[in-house]
Amino acid sequence: MSEGPTVDDTTAWWSTAITRIAPGEIELRGYPIEQLIGKLDFVSTVWLLTTGGLPTATQSRLLEAALVASVDHGPQAPSIASARMAATCGVGLNSAVANGVNVLGDTHGGAGQQCVTLLSELVATAAQGRDLGEVADEAVAGYRARKAFVPGFGHRFHPRDPRRDVLLGLVEEAVEAGEVSGDYLRAGLAVESALAKGRRAVPMNIDGVTAIVYGELGVEPELARGFFVLARSVGILAHAWEESRSGRRVKGPLPPPLLAGYTGEPTRPFTGD
Amino acid sequence: MSEGPTVDDTTAWWSTAITRIAPGEIELRGYPIEQLIGKLDFVSTVWLLTTGGLPTATQSRLLEAALVASVDHGPQAPSIASARMAATCGVGLNSAVANGVNVLGDTHGGAGQQCVTLLSELVATAAQGRDLGEVADEAVAGYRARKAFVPGFGHRFHPRDPRRDVLLGLVEEAVEAGEVSGDYLRAGLAVESALAKGRRAVPMNIDGVTAIVYGELGVEPELARGFFVLARSVGILAHAWEESRSGRRVKGPLPPPLLAGYTGEPTRPFTGD
Amino acid sequence: MSEGPTVDDTTAWWSTAITRIAPGEIELRGYPIEQLIGKLDFVSTVWLLTTGGLPTATQSRLLEAALVASVDHGPQAPSIASARMAATCGVGLNSAVANGVNVLGDTHGGAGQQCVTLLSELVATAAQGRDLGEVADEAVAGYRARKAFVPGFGHRFHPRDPRRDVLLGLVEEAVEAGEVSGDYLRAGLAVESALAKGRRAVPMNIDGVTAIVYGELGVEPELARGFFVLARSVGILAHAWEESRSGRRVKGPLPPPLLAGYTGEPTRPFTGD
Amino acid sequence: MSEGPTVDDTTAWWSTAITRIAPGEIELRGYPIEQLIGKLDFVSTVWLLTTGGLPTATQSRLLEAALVASVDHGPQAPSIASARMAATCGVGLNSAVANGVNVLGDTHGGAGQQCVTLLSELVATAAQGRDLGEVADEAVAGYRARKAFVPGFGHRFHPRDPRRDVLLGLVEEAVEAGEVSGDYLRAGLAVESALAKGRRAVPMNIDGVTAIVYGELGVEPELARGFFVLARSVGILAHAWEESRSGRRVKGPLPPPLLAGYTGEPTRPFTGD
Repeated sequence: MSEGPTVDDTTAWWSTAITRIAPGEIELRGYPIEQLIGKLDFVSTVWLLTTGGLPTATQSRLLEAALVASVDHGPQAPSIASARMAATCGVGLNSAVANGVNVLGDTHGGAGQQCVTLLSELVATAAQGRDLGEVADEAVAGYRARKAFVPGFGHRFHPRDPRRDVLLGLVEEAVEAGEVSGDYLRAGLAVESALAKGRRAVPMNIDGVTAIVYGELGVEPELARGFFVLARSVGILAHAWEESRSGRRVKGPLPPPLLAGYTGEPTRPFTGD
Repeated sequence: MSEGPTVDDTTAWWSTAITRIAPGEIELRGYPIEQLIGKLDFVSTVWLLTTGGLPTATQSRLLEAALVASVDHGPQAPSIASARMAATCGVGLNSAVANGVNVLGDTHGGAGQQCVTLLSELVATAAQGRDLGEVADEAVAGYRARKAFVPGFGHRFHPRDPRRDVLLGLVEEAVEAGEVSGDYLRAGLAVESALAKGRRAVPMNIDGVTAIVYGELGVEPELARGFFVLARSVGILAHAWEESRSGRRVKGPLPPPLLAGYTGEPTRPFTGD
Repeated sequence: MSEGPTVDDTTAWWSTAITRIAPGEIELRGYPIEQLIGKLDFVSTVWLLTTGGLPTATQSRLLEAALVASVDHGPQAPSIASARMAATCGVGLNSAVANGVNVLGDTHGGAGQQCVTLLSELVATAAQGRDLGEVADEAVAGYRARKAFVPGFGHRFHPRDPRRDVLLGLVEEAVEAGEVSGDYLRAGLAVESALAKGRRAVPMNIDGVTAIVYGELGVEPELARGFFVLARSVGILAHAWEESRSGRRVKGPLPPPLLAGYTGEPTRPFTGD
Repeated sequence: MSEGPTVDDTTAWWSTAITRIAPGEIELRGYPIEQLIGKLDFVSTVWLLTTGGLPTATQSRLLEAALVASVDHGPQAPSIASARMAATCGVGLNSAVANGVNVLGDTHGGAGQQCVTLLSELVATAAQGRDLGEVADEAVAGYRARKAFVPGFGHRFHPRDPRRDVLLGLVEEAVEAGEVSGDYLRAGLAVESALAKGRRAVPMNIDGVTAIVYGELGVEPELARGFFVLARSVGILAHAWEESRSGRRVKGPLPPPLLAGYTGEPTRPFTGD
């Protein structure tokens, strides 16, 4: 056994750079937690835990705006509907929230992550001297050739997303103040312009606007999805809580006595065995 | 069919008082979202969505402190370990966070909810003229007779939780300012005193301290668990993100080549069929 | 460190009596897996893993019938609807199935567990010499006094559940063959008779019928829920798979352009900052 | 409103070809359920629900063997560890199973799906007249050039997987009986041979062997993952149930008093406000 793993290998296997615990001590990224409580705001704590450092005032302000903008979009979203149904099935609010969060996948909540990736590629290409408008046109043409959605653009409900202008305004302020570069703002607007040349308008949606924010903040694409998950958890929680107080039991998608349609085989006898 | 449900019944089945959506419009609890972004802070948005109204400065400050205090307690918690393992299994951050949140059940994350319920009972009984100290002694004796844990008290790691004093200090300030009643603070301290009479110290833990905060804020017990879920989601996300960047694949609880122990039947031949 | 935990403590922490792994070896409950594959049927493998021993032919036959009876009840169940929505959100089938399984909680999938508990109490009381019919009448009266549902009885859709007679027939056969005692069958029928004395019929449902099966098999209540979870996973998987092939993206509970109703505050300006 | 959606659109939105429900009636793929219970075995019911038809004896036998072979691989798998931890956190067995199933993602449980896809490509290419061995060599070279794992091959624990020979033997029998084509068997063996030419052995693992079975059965890749999810649910359930009976509360990955290691910032004061 002298050559095998030791108990220290097992504690190292679970190592983290986020939180240090010792009897009577809890530190977040090195800061004693009792110094943070009541002093550091919640959004800055989110930044601290995920990125490792304290945000500037501008970083905190932009992250906060992006989070507030993303909290909810109503019960027709599958994430919210899942959480509301779960809340009537005899599981705790934790499990109801989990079911809502779990479906924020590549298609439902992942467009923001994909849009950060797209904008990063445009920013990197433009940095090599290419014209941003041309690069955006080519990117959009590529999506169209594959009949794919451009992540961050287009919406089933909103011809113009009410969250767009105010969020972009905050980014513009930060650019003017020299706090962020503006590269992602320009890239996002270039994609929007490229799309506007098509047959029908494809406006920037919340995923696109927040992707600009996260890009300007230097947030990596996957973490951008994480921030969306955190923000939408607020709406998921609020809806699960509202539904749990309704007293309904085992809520399905259709009000009784409605039943789902049936499109399968007509009745047939089982003759086996 | 004239008597059956109509399409309006199906939209009513999914009704909510939280968010109103119309083309180009998103309102949270009646407020146009574009008026909130950049103006209303995230914690106040959490309060608005879950309770329906805007918080006072004191309510927002206390909720923020309770949330910051609850964000993380390291990878030895099953919620964090679950999320970290999930992040190595080829699922998105959303699913990793969901797995962490899902286990914040009655035993792991539910003590805060139970403690709010306990303190509410003590407050209600004391309001009928009983001596709070006696009532707390009786409650503690009841738990001991059932060999049950008193929710919100006791900790495996911390002889004294570093989050206790600073959070209670914030509550005291709010009591002195006449912003909250202090009923839950007194009830929580009474339980702590009752427990101190036992053979070994059972200090107030984070669930107990935050239960005092939530009780003072008038937050219902189940929603108190919801707020804990939201706060701990930050730590869960940070840990899932850290692990996802490690490059590990299919991380189990033990570092390879360690294998789980086996306590079952010795090898036996299958002679059936 | 000589007094602290060793690496053996960490492998013991994860000990199991279910499966033994060594290089080139996998044993289930002591049986080399290569001896089971192709020889032991799947349902008997379920019994082996969960209970530790091989089932008799009758045990396997009854468990199989209960599992087949429980596989699906259509998309209006929140478990199925959750899984179908998840399958359109860009997560894998594993996550879609997880969301369906997760909501089989105390209210949705837990009635079988509760019914096994109820029948066990009736069987135990009758074993002490009380008249089973009287005991069942008292139990039903107790639920009615609390305005609670009797777990395992009553259904929104089915005046008579088509699964009842055939499953009870299989139990009767096993009783006549002396393979099971018939205690749970008698207890279940006694509850049904007690309920039939009420103002409106409350027929035995699938949870009640399978609770009789599981009770006769000596399956503990919580594991009975586990078996229901396993059976319903088949329907959940089939529905998630059907939906994933539909090509729909981000399916909500209502077909677009329908929107959820709104019952909250009318539009109001946000004047804070 | 005359042009808008009707209530029939909402029931059609939830249509299925799997299960038809009417008062007193439940049909699975057209078969009245009371004719199946006690007559159709569980594995054939799995096939019926997912594919729409009844399996042949060979199809049922091969599917059963693949399912039995996949039920468990012990607590060092993150799926099992997640479920065991969940079972100690005060959530139901349903939620514990959900957490286990949820992590059977692209990396942990998805290799079978990916291997079916790989073998399908080899079979299709060979059908166009290419030499299967050459095609397999090229495919393996491609993975190696990308430094990627070949899905379905290689294992951390087993130099030779004990499930391989017995499962391949069952496939060979079916080929000899003319029940399946043998195309996927030959493709899988060709990949194994191609890998054997490398510097170190990369034996076929359970994902590879079952991918051959599922390929021979004509099961689509994504559904192959679904079947693995269903099979592993048995082990997940058995482990969650075993752990739930242990009486442990809030089980983390390390036995107390062990704590996760810390690799982050040293203690630093928080000077902000």
